[in-house]
Amino acid sequence: MVAQGHRSADTRLVGLDWGTSSLRAYRYDVGARVVESRELPAGLMRLADSNGPGTSSDRFERVFREACGDWVAAAPAAPIVACGMVGSAQGWRQAAYLEVPVALEQIASRLTAFETAQGVTVRIVPGLIERGVLPDVMRGEETQVVGALEAAAVPPGARVLVGLPGTHSKWVEVRNRAVEHLRTFMTGELYQTLCAHTILGRTLRQPSSPSHSAFDRGIEVTRSAEGRGGLLSTIFSARALGLTGALREEEGGDYLSGLLIGHELAGLEELRPDVFDTTSEIVLAGSAELCERYRRALAIRGCRKVVLVPAAAQLGLWRLAAWAGLVEDPAEARGDSSPVAEPR
Amino acid sequence: MVAQGHRSADTRLVGLDWGTSSLRAYRYDVGARVVESRELPAGLMRLADSNGPGTSSDRFERVFREACGDWVAAAPAAPIVACGMVGSAQGWRQAAYLEVPVALEQIASRLTAFETAQGVTVRIVPGLIERGVLPDVMRGEETQVVGALEAAAVPPGARVLVGLPGTHSKWVEVRNRAVEHLRTFMTGELYQTLCAHTILGRTLRQPSSPSHSAFDRGIEVTRSAEGRGGLLSTIFSARALGLTGALREEEGGDYLSGLLIGHELAGLEELRPDVFDTTSEIVLAGSAELCERYRRALAIRGCRKVVLVPAAAQLGLWRLAAWAGLVEDPAEARGDSSPVAEPR
Repeated sequence: MVAQGHRSADTRLVGLDWGTSSLRAYRYDVGARVVESRELPAGLMRLADSNGPGTSSDRFERVFREACGDWVAAAPAAPIVACGMVGSAQGWRQAAYLEVPVALEQIASRLTAFETAQGVTVRIVPGLIERGVLPDVMRGEETQVVGALEAAAVPPGARVLVGLPGTHSKWVEVRNRAVEHLRTFMTGELYQTLCAHTILGRTLRQPSSPSHSAFDRGIEVTRSAEGRGGLLSTIFSARALGLTGALREEEGGDYLSGLLIGHELAGLEELRPDVFDTTSEIVLAGSAELCERYRRALAIRGCRKVVLVPAAAQLGLWRLAAWAGLVEDPAEARGDSSPVAEPR
Repeated sequence: MVAQGHRSADTRLVGLDWGTSSLRAYRYDVGARVVESRELPAGLMRLADSNGPGTSSDRFERVFREACGDWVAAAPAAPIVACGMVGSAQGWRQAAYLEVPVALEQIASRLTAFETAQGVTVRIVPGLIERGVLPDVMRGEETQVVGALEAAAVPPGARVLVGLPGTHSKWVEVRNRAVEHLRTFMTGELYQTLCAHTILGRTLRQPSSPSHSAFDRGIEVTRSAEGRGGLLSTIFSARALGLTGALREEEGGDYLSGLLIGHELAGLEELRPDVFDTTSEIVLAGSAELCERYRRALAIRGCRKVVLVPAAAQLGLWRLAAWAGLVEDPAEARGDSSPVAEPR
């Protein structure tokens, strides 16, 4: 405990990436490095629905203490910044939605600060909203975008497309370090649901290793004449190809994954033909395995200026805290933002 | 029992529409009229998965006896014709898939006859398959198509599009009384799954009566520029519109239904622009409520030559039995096939 307390005294920032399914807590040192991190399966979905004792706010507070109470006790002056669904109406405290277009630095000036029951100040990053006939929203991904641009060393005036694959994939257009548009695709959630709860899942078998050829085949279908029929039509082929012996059970999952990601990219191109084409500079952030799938799908479409960024949220939390004046960048930081992964 | 036996002695045909979720049994009299019908929730999904005693075949036989054992005992000479997933690999006895194009009458010449353990002969209608890069299949719907064309009094040389909304919607192109193409859309299953197992369902509330305006709004989205992004993108709007207060919880289900049916029709038009347009003659068969939804969606797209047919499967079972020489049409039948529902 003494060692723990001693180490924690170095804490310059506590960052929380608190989403629908989990809480990731990060402890940063004076060099902006994450020196400790913890993950709890205590996402919003569980806390908001829980029938446990106390109010929803009590439950958030309890999980917060469990995740990083010792860090906070050892370094009470360290600011605490949280992003994600924790700032939604069903979260711990509701934070704003900022309307796009919005400069990334502007996000840091609109943190929602509140005191916990124990008198600790927590600041929640606002989400972003794009109004229009079909509005779109995100919470947490704005922080990933901030971190991804930093990690990919995107020049200030550049135009880039940031792809954030996941349960709900987000595609975010950034120009001059401002978010101009965002669009959500429910690709990850639909994939999980199709596998778990529809007839398609009945004939899938988990492969020992992913089948690239089945994945590519799914992508190609979405680029073919048959793909014009849309997802409701193409997904049935996962079954019909199985019935005719043209797709093995252990290929079904990757084929379906290819279909869905292919439809996502085709839809993005239809929505933003002037932004998404083979010349686009694309930054991908999210799970490494999933980002690799998207890189592969993008390559099939001819998009090769793709950079993968790990740990975008933790980078973004520090950057926002720095912009908000809550932490001071280490002297070398501004000149040291080389890409974490090289472009191919 | 005597009365029952006496009535059943009039039986000229026993027809079974035995699908994934239920078995519908029909008893026809000499006038080709269904004089008795029964429904058991003993579809394939339950029988194939069941852990009950006996083989899968035993279970089918038991349900068969439960549904119509008394009819068969009272009229042992009456033929028994079954259609649907009962003829699949997981069914009672596997029936063929006939390749399209195929003349409808041809279907009747390819019934798969077998004897049950009790020595009763059952004949199963073959399914249809369209081969190609993305093959497509159906079982049971071929019988609905036969019945729908008869009920809608489609002239022999006509070209019509038969829509069979349901768990898996089928669109079947018929010309000169032959099936030329078929295409499946998993619209119904996806709708159920999205409502039951995704975040979209969390903010839906069952309305006291369907909201036509929300449904129409969903359809219109699929016809707009935003709809080009495809289903993975548009369905998220059911959530985002809710968050921004632009869609009420009790409107969410109908809005989503409109989105899905709208994407289905948009996909069909992309796949078959020369077949599906505002001049198409369309026959819809299936649940009355669902067919009304499709009629509404088709009207928004400008398709107004639409006929709704109830009870297509039971009509089709008799027609196939007649073509197979198993029953004799009543004298007046051929001149009496007026539309069951008027076109609008």
